[in-house]
Amino acid sequence: QSSITIGGVIDAAARQVRNEGRGAVSSLASGGNSTSRLIFRGSDDLGDGMSASFHLETGLLLDTGTSASATQFWDRRSTLSLATPALGELRGGRDYVPTYTLWTRHDPFSYVGVAGSTNLLANSQQGPVRAAFGTTANTLVRASNTLQWLLPSAPAGMAGLEGGVMVSAREGGNSADGQHKLQGVRLGYVTKAFSVGAATSTTESNLTTLGRFRDTSVGAIGELGMARVSAAWRRLSYGPATQTDVMLGLWWPVAGGEVKASWHRANLDGKVGSTAVQANDATQWGLGYVYSLSRRSALYASCSRISNDGAATFTVPGGASGMTAGGRSTGYELGVRHTF
Amino acid sequence: QSSITIGGVIDAAARQVRNEGRGAVSSLASGGNSTSRLIFRGSDDLGDGMSASFHLETGLLLDTGTSASATQFWDRRSTLSLATPALGELRGGRDYVPTYTLWTRHDPFSYVGVAGSTNLLANSQQGPVRAAFGTTANTLVRASNTLQWLLPSAPAGMAGLEGGVMVSAREGGNSADGQHKLQGVRLGYVTKAFSVGAATSTTESNLTTLGRFRDTSVGAIGELGMARVSAAWRRLSYGPATQTDVMLGLWWPVAGGEVKASWHRANLDGKVGSTAVQANDATQWGLGYVYSLSRRSALYASCSRISNDGAATFTVPGGASGMTAGGRSTGYELGVRHTF
Amino acid sequence: QSSITIGGVIDAAARQVRNEGRGAVSSLASGGNSTSRLIFRGSDDLGDGMSASFHLETGLLLDTGTSASATQFWDRRSTLSLATPALGELRGGRDYVPTYTLWTRHDPFSYVGVAGSTNLLANSQQGPVRAAFGTTANTLVRASNTLQWLLPSAPAGMAGLEGGVMVSAREGGNSADGQHKLQGVRLGYVTKAFSVGAATSTTESNLTTLGRFRDTSVGAIGELGMARVSAAWRRLSYGPATQTDVMLGLWWPVAGGEVKASWHRANLDGKVGSTAVQANDATQWGLGYVYSLSRRSALYASCSRISNDGAATFTVPGGASGMTAGGRSTGYELGVRHTF
Repeated sequence: QSSITIGGVIDAAARQVRNEGRGAVSSLASGGNSTSRLIFRGSDDLGDGMSASFHLETGLLLDTGTSASATQFWDRRSTLSLATPALGELRGGRDYVPTYTLWTRHDPFSYVGVAGSTNLLANSQQGPVRAAFGTTANTLVRASNTLQWLLPSAPAGMAGLEGGVMVSAREGGNSADGQHKLQGVRLGYVTKAFSVGAATSTTESNLTTLGRFRDTSVGAIGELGMARVSAAWRRLSYGPATQTDVMLGLWWPVAGGEVKASWHRANLDGKVGSTAVQANDATQWGLGYVYSLSRRSALYASCSRISNDGAATFTVPGGASGMTAGGRSTGYELGVRHTF
Repeated sequence: QSSITIGGVIDAAARQVRNEGRGAVSSLASGGNSTSRLIFRGSDDLGDGMSASFHLETGLLLDTGTSASATQFWDRRSTLSLATPALGELRGGRDYVPTYTLWTRHDPFSYVGVAGSTNLLANSQQGPVRAAFGTTANTLVRASNTLQWLLPSAPAGMAGLEGGVMVSAREGGNSADGQHKLQGVRLGYVTKAFSVGAATSTTESNLTTLGRFRDTSVGAIGELGMARVSAAWRRLSYGPATQTDVMLGLWWPVAGGEVKASWHRANLDGKVGSTAVQANDATQWGLGYVYSLSRRSALYASCSRISNDGAATFTVPGGASGMTAGGRSTGYELGVRHTF
Repeated sequence: QSSITIGGVIDAAARQVRNEGRGAVSSLASGGNSTSRLIFRGSDDLGDGMSASFHLETGLLLDTGTSASATQFWDRRSTLSLATPALGELRGGRDYVPTYTLWTRHDPFSYVGVAGSTNLLANSQQGPVRAAFGTTANTLVRASNTLQWLLPSAPAGMAGLEGGVMVSAREGGNSADGQHKLQGVRLGYVTKAFSVGAATSTTESNLTTLGRFRDTSVGAIGELGMARVSAAWRRLSYGPATQTDVMLGLWWPVAGGEVKASWHRANLDGKVGSTAVQANDATQWGLGYVYSLSRRSALYASCSRISNDGAATFTVPGGASGMTAGGRSTGYELGVRHTF
């Protein structure tokens, strides 16, 4: 007897990105509204509300037909869970870290596309992330080899605490192999009208010779008339380098769909090696509209602009490399998102 | 709510290929009649006949359990479409190019197996394909990052125009990454009794320093008593090198199945660098029989012979490398094809 | 019309392994009870009991989200079959070799986890496997490019002969590409109360310059009161090097589940090059308990100890590399297995 559900998202957009000093690049992009993916999941009712379940999720780039990760096919999530209504969920595998889970829900652009908040959290910049992990796998979004305990969900429609604890043994391994010692926790309170939450984690690897990499995030979402607004703060620190991000978000229902907007500021501080990075800040504006074609399909249009300070070269994805230091990066996209 | 269909083809054959001067090699081959593959697709009815749909297709080598492409898991097709009965289909992603779509329907062996017409279109030979793309990805079959508009289909069983336009932005990239600037168009007329069509495309990349690579194809299919016959012409050109292919095909229904035959001539001309290639031509004969075990499963047997001229070394796939220049390559296979 | 079934296993465990001289490593491990995998299979009824069917199976590491094989996505099995009740099954593709099929059923730990018999069959040791194949793909478990004929199954619940013959053409290829000339056979007799069987195979490749690699296995399973017990013998030989393994197994039903135990001895003999290996033996004890949560889900706990002699460094998987020669390796794991 087999029990499995297959779902996912397929999303493609025509995109144009202009990086200052490097002209414009037009492209077909995958996942401008929601990352293209295929999900296999299933669960087994063990009686008394207890269940076992699994979740396998592979990301893909629709424009080229490649897997999102060259080495980890089930890169987005691969987990096995035991859960009871009273005790919550014990989950093992590769999964989202607590700070990402909190942060991303405050981003109207869900961390992706021309206006996603990932743009200002890139490891391409000299800052705490680059200093701690180089260009190897970092723990800003996911971690491998994790065990976590998640609080029981509040009954549908009711207010309640939510959160969890995640640990990952380093397994004697290397950051290059995604093997980190991670300890994280998340706690929040959710009602229909608002939510507040905080999360923090520390990561150690063979590369973190200056001590632990720290990642802390706090955020709130509330209603403002018809609209929903969010505010979130995230601090990344490693040795003498820190990056502090602030993000404001807006979701505004309009005829046929939703308008979204975000303002996001990344503020670097301290030093990487002997290089001072505090001047290398950046600000991103994002604006988007999502028009629902059906409950499962939508058209969307988004634009964004990143203004860099100092030597910063944060960019909208999809442009030419080699942007002028301190330059502007501007992106537009028009796409289709299909959920199944 | 999930809406997805999984289908595909699994096909394996015992094959023997003899390349002149190199002896015979026996092997288990994958996809002698139809490429082994797994397809995930789905669609969403948007009302008024409009629909959104996706298609993900991964090729595989059944004999070894490997993916057909080491780097592109969804190598065969990964597309997202919006379609209406009146306006046709807008489709984005990785897909077949117009010239291939036209050409392959004229090949009784569907471009694959010991007798497939791919054998005389190999980038192993000095000619326009090798000159334009080296051994990196070329655009003879598929292209990444494409947007295309396809004419509305004629109502089932009715005659009508068919075709489409495809463009792909180069995305500032490299041929090695499959990033080409491609512009293509296809137009045809189809009835129950015959079809005619033509397609052409041009491709530019960082490697095409001598100008655009051009690919043009024309073909027709008609009935001849019980049989179906085809004739197709394809010209590939780049700088001073051209390759002109002519192919004749036959499908002949017999007891329990179908006999297929093809004759295919590749005629090279001009120069690659300072090397004249006009003597390096080749001719392929193919003969096959497909016996239907059911609507979804079949046995098949095929054989082919390639006769090379000059320095040409076109070969049937599955033989030993290092064939004598101008030699003969002969192949046989006996296989099973299962569609699901 | 599509006809496909998706199933699989997701299995994860918390594991600790201590290799003498190297301390303990804690990890999240995938597949401690049964390898995590996803299976796509289907069949087509051809009438008169005849059928065509396929089986595609990909292994995965749940802890990291990676495919079990970096190069062979359908690494576990990829086959196409034609079968009739009277004549048996003709199967082509990548599949288990006869000696593995026989051996593994005698291992209470199914060849995997801290106590699996794979631990004493590693190519890390100087012995016949390492001498014949180096660290490239060997044929202890699976082979690519195979054709096999399997005897018809006995009607359900009845005693009968079972077995098959497997051949694989070398395809002119390299061991590094998994291309071997393999010839194998397996024969057994099975009743409800006991089974006996034997299997043997030889493998040649571009690396086997000293002659064929030989793999022979014999085993029996019987009932002992409530328990089931097994005994198996396997000999690997290549040139002047041999490895002889003996394994005893126990399955003992207890409240809520099953206790399993195994004793496994690997005895090396002869030389690899000019190095005598006969002193490098090892013994493994394994003990486990599987508690059924449902028909499809289970908790399990296992432990094992490998005692090495001479220069042997057989280890439980998941520990630190560089164990003391002749040292002890000890492992524990606590996991969840979910079948779907």
